[in-house]
Amino acid sequence: MRDEWFIRGKVPMTKEEIRAVSIQKLELKKDSVLYDIGAGTGSVSVEAAGFLEDGKVYAIEKNPEAVSLIRQNVEKFHRTQVQVVEGKAPGVLTGLPVPSHAFLGGTAGEMEAVLDLLLEKNPKIRVVLNVIALESLGRIVGYLNCHKIDGEIVLVQTSKSRILGEYHMMSGGNPVYVIAFGGEHR
Amino acid sequence: MRDEWFIRGKVPMTKEEIRAVSIQKLELKKDSVLYDIGAGTGSVSVEAAGFLEDGKVYAIEKNPEAVSLIRQNVEKFHRTQVQVVEGKAPGVLTGLPVPSHAFLGGTAGEMEAVLDLLLEKNPKIRVVLNVIALESLGRIVGYLNCHKIDGEIVLVQTSKSRILGEYHMMSGGNPVYVIAFGGEHR
Amino acid sequence: MRDEWFIRGKVPMTKEEIRAVSIQKLELKKDSVLYDIGAGTGSVSVEAAGFLEDGKVYAIEKNPEAVSLIRQNVEKFHRTQVQVVEGKAPGVLTGLPVPSHAFLGGTAGEMEAVLDLLLEKNPKIRVVLNVIALESLGRIVGYLNCHKIDGEIVLVQTSKSRILGEYHMMSGGNPVYVIAFGGEHR
Amino acid sequence: MRDEWFIRGKVPMTKEEIRAVSIQKLELKKDSVLYDIGAGTGSVSVEAAGFLEDGKVYAIEKNPEAVSLIRQNVEKFHRTQVQVVEGKAPGVLTGLPVPSHAFLGGTAGEMEAVLDLLLEKNPKIRVVLNVIALESLGRIVGYLNCHKIDGEIVLVQTSKSRILGEYHMMSGGNPVYVIAFGGEHR
Repeated sequence: MRDEWFIRGKVPMTKEEIRAVSIQKLELKKDSVLYDIGAGTGSVSVEAAGFLEDGKVYAIEKNPEAVSLIRQNVEKFHRTQVQVVEGKAPGVLTGLPVPSHAFLGGTAGEMEAVLDLLLEKNPKIRVVLNVIALESLGRIVGYLNCHKIDGEIVLVQTSKSRILGEYHMMSGGNPVYVIAFGGEHR
Repeated sequence: MRDEWFIRGKVPMTKEEIRAVSIQKLELKKDSVLYDIGAGTGSVSVEAAGFLEDGKVYAIEKNPEAVSLIRQNVEKFHRTQVQVVEGKAPGVLTGLPVPSHAFLGGTAGEMEAVLDLLLEKNPKIRVVLNVIALESLGRIVGYLNCHKIDGEIVLVQTSKSRILGEYHMMSGGNPVYVIAFGGEHR
Repeated sequence: MRDEWFIRGKVPMTKEEIRAVSIQKLELKKDSVLYDIGAGTGSVSVEAAGFLEDGKVYAIEKNPEAVSLIRQNVEKFHRTQVQVVEGKAPGVLTGLPVPSHAFLGGTAGEMEAVLDLLLEKNPKIRVVLNVIALESLGRIVGYLNCHKIDGEIVLVQTSKSRILGEYHMMSGGNPVYVIAFGGEHR
Repeated sequence: MRDEWFIRGKVPMTKEEIRAVSIQKLELKKDSVLYDIGAGTGSVSVEAAGFLEDGKVYAIEKNPEAVSLIRQNVEKFHRTQVQVVEGKAPGVLTGLPVPSHAFLGGTAGEMEAVLDLLLEKNPKIRVVLNVIALESLGRIVGYLNCHKIDGEIVLVQTSKSRILGEYHMMSGGNPVYVIAFGGEHR
């Protein structure tokens, strides 16, 4: 799905190519239960829900402005599989059903505590993270090493053409690390 | 879907991150009719078919070894929507039903003639190409300019971690251009 | 040399990492004679001149605003080896002494005619180009193929950190192709 | 200087584009005193020495095989400014003259202790590091943050053409982080 199809405020959004790679790494099945933690505009929740005929997405978001955007996007794309949960992880996650998958798209605030809780809820959970700050990268690498988790770390860089007169010029996007681990396939 | 899930011979395969971005750019609908031209191992056909409840994929491939791989992968993943078509584009395309989408993953051999035929069959077709040779890049840019097609050109580069002792080292992948144009959304 | 050390107007400037790689690819010697064609702010001329004890740089530029900037930068860094030549290549090159090296940093306007003249003046000339538009890339690849020149094409992408609160975020720069060929070493 | 010009064993070598960017970031002057710590084949020492008319390079290396390579390369290129110092940093650095510049090209083993000693010897030292392991990246980012050092972090990725039949294909290199801080210009 294109970024421009989503209703957006000033809330940061995972770019479409990164979203595509992240959802591919999630390896969703029709009945998966996905936590989208720090759901932002809900773009990942909405696109992922397209894979979930009998599944469920919990879009967790603490920012009220973003919560409203998620609701609008869920409605725009008729994604009845998505339930918006307002609140802050990991606290807000405790009462929710056991997840098979989780996506952490944004802030690293409580990353370790969130990951601990996810793995406690389901030791075979499939987790995908997007990381852009070098400090957050250091923390997730440390977490993987500390827990002896054999994760996959992919650095994705995209550049896009824009027309300047008669020329296609390429504009560089920001590098994003997509980290994936767990699941039942390995 | 992971690259390692597919049955592979010596036939070149679109890497999983590039495949994810390419399929995202296709913007498939449930009833889309996709030509996968130069289908190789069939990885794009198989993964794309997951989106096509009532649609159809024509996996076109001239190399008999690859044709056999496509058949095996289609069977492995139970993708009844995929029909394998042995032969060489553009010739072999003439008799096939009108496509809504097309993916050109590989050789640039007859690129312009193939694109001409696709646009003749359906002027609103959505087309995605993967290009790795600079000569092929030059030709598709020339084609877009010549036909005044406002396409999107995305350069995708990925690097992947591998463990070396106590360290995560990043190995660079080859840069791939993903080109997309057409469709009914623009 | 840092970009910020140069006097800059609105004239586009080769970024410092690309300039470093380009000058490295030039393989200058102490007595080299370098044409810097489309010299812009003169940053390449000035930095390259640092290698040329007994050599010479001809900074060729047609834009009067840029010519003035080159003069200011040459003076700021006391590069007496640099001679500014106002005018348009290839015409303006005819009367100049035979070059051992040439750098083409910018516009592709008359690229083929300029390269033809350079190779006529010195068939063993070492040439480095920077290319950002895909159309220009296609043309230089075509030139190399047509003349059976075994050049090196390097795609360089850099991202730089910026501080955001407590985080180092990486901002992507634009991909640049650095093309090099010729010289007496091969 | 090209990688292939250096005498190489099985010792890892900074690739030429990364070496060019790293030396540019060093901002050497004619009388600089450079420590090249973990000098490997000596490629950085040798190329940097070309900038140091009245300066000095201390090529520090613990691996005897590499020490021998450095000596051979220093001789091949007549770099009398380079003094090879066999031993392990930081210990071996104590007796050496005060440095104005330092380059850390490789192993992160004692990175923090080495940086501490360098900054003790010369609080205004200009330091450039190359980092490829994510763990090392995390450590240098931590060091910069902890010491409130405003450094520059540049991610450099290069891809190079190789000829395949009639095509120029691009092969991706590994991403390298070039980190620079200090010096008297800021």
